[in-house]
Amino acid sequence: MGRTSEARERLLDAACDLMRGRGYGAIGVAEICERADVRKGSFYHFFDSKQTLTVEALRAAWADDGAMWREVLGADSGPFRRLKRLVEAQAEAQQRSKREVGAVRGCLYGNLTLELGNQDEVVHGCLKEIFDEQVDLVHQVLLEAHAGGDLVAERATRASARAVLAQVEGMVLFAKLDNDPALLDGLWPQIAGLLGVA
Amino acid sequence: MGRTSEARERLLDAACDLMRGRGYGAIGVAEICERADVRKGSFYHFFDSKQTLTVEALRAAWADDGAMWREVLGADSGPFRRLKRLVEAQAEAQQRSKREVGAVRGCLYGNLTLELGNQDEVVHGCLKEIFDEQVDLVHQVLLEAHAGGDLVAERATRASARAVLAQVEGMVLFAKLDNDPALLDGLWPQIAGLLGVA
Repeated sequence: MGRTSEARERLLDAACDLMRGRGYGAIGVAEICERADVRKGSFYHFFDSKQTLTVEALRAAWADDGAMWREVLGADSGPFRRLKRLVEAQAEAQQRSKREVGAVRGCLYGNLTLELGNQDEVVHGCLKEIFDEQVDLVHQVLLEAHAGGDLVAERATRASARAVLAQVEGMVLFAKLDNDPALLDGLWPQIAGLLGVA
Repeated sequence: MGRTSEARERLLDAACDLMRGRGYGAIGVAEICERADVRKGSFYHFFDSKQTLTVEALRAAWADDGAMWREVLGADSGPFRRLKRLVEAQAEAQQRSKREVGAVRGCLYGNLTLELGNQDEVVHGCLKEIFDEQVDLVHQVLLEAHAGGDLVAERATRASARAVLAQVEGMVLFAKLDNDPALLDGLWPQIAGLLGVA
């Protein structure tokens, strides 16, 4: 039992790691098995297809990332301080990637969204759920800022939360393009500008 | 001669069109040839590889798009009016895509940037050139706005121009995720906020 669930975990980790670096289309089941040190026959014991594995891998990644988001955004400090901390954590993730593998690999969810669009309905549906939850979490903080008198009502919207995350995703794209996480240093002032709270 | 150059053009158009919808990894030479109605043998008469074709296709796409950017940003009106027009043109491109093929396909350059990262040095170098030119074009308009007294010096920077384009790319990502170009309706107020010119 222990070994079995370990093999499954290794497949999920390997898929995440490979896709973070090279996307969906460029990665095959054989390569995922090799990286995970699992035989191809065993792969199909756990997953129907690369698609099924990808959805599970995305969910596992967001289980970790989302827990961090909730912890940071639920901390005991002012709403903008928490939002700033979340934005800094995104920049730190790209710095870590550069340090560890030599490349700013970007955001796994953003990478797959732009690569796949709605070509693959199942993966696309999973990405939509993850981003919807991200938008909800940021929206919640904006509502708190509004309740505390720190944000006007028209900026405490879901659209505004999406705009904040769009700035993060867009700047991560440029950081990946230039392979330079320092491009993310200016993210918080940009987002404060977007929210009109400079 | 006429037929030859037509076949080459058809290959470039087919590559652009297919990659706009489905990215780089998912598209093969055979499919590009089929879409272009060109024999595979002829493909290799024009291009060494899918990589070579992709770089030429990106350059051809940016030759068209860049001409539009220059026209819009060089128009005879205030700098922010021109920038607003450029942003609206990006939204219109996604509306057109939705109307014509039923899908918000996003930005070809952004899609390939997030899919490929620096996996493919040659394609990556080409994308970098295109985005560098985009940033330069927007930076030029910000400098004009500053010269006219409409923008503070610290916002009339290359970093600021990049942040403007990041907001466009990020919102296009969400429009692609939701297959809804209406998400781009709020782009200009967001960018005005980023620039502190609300």
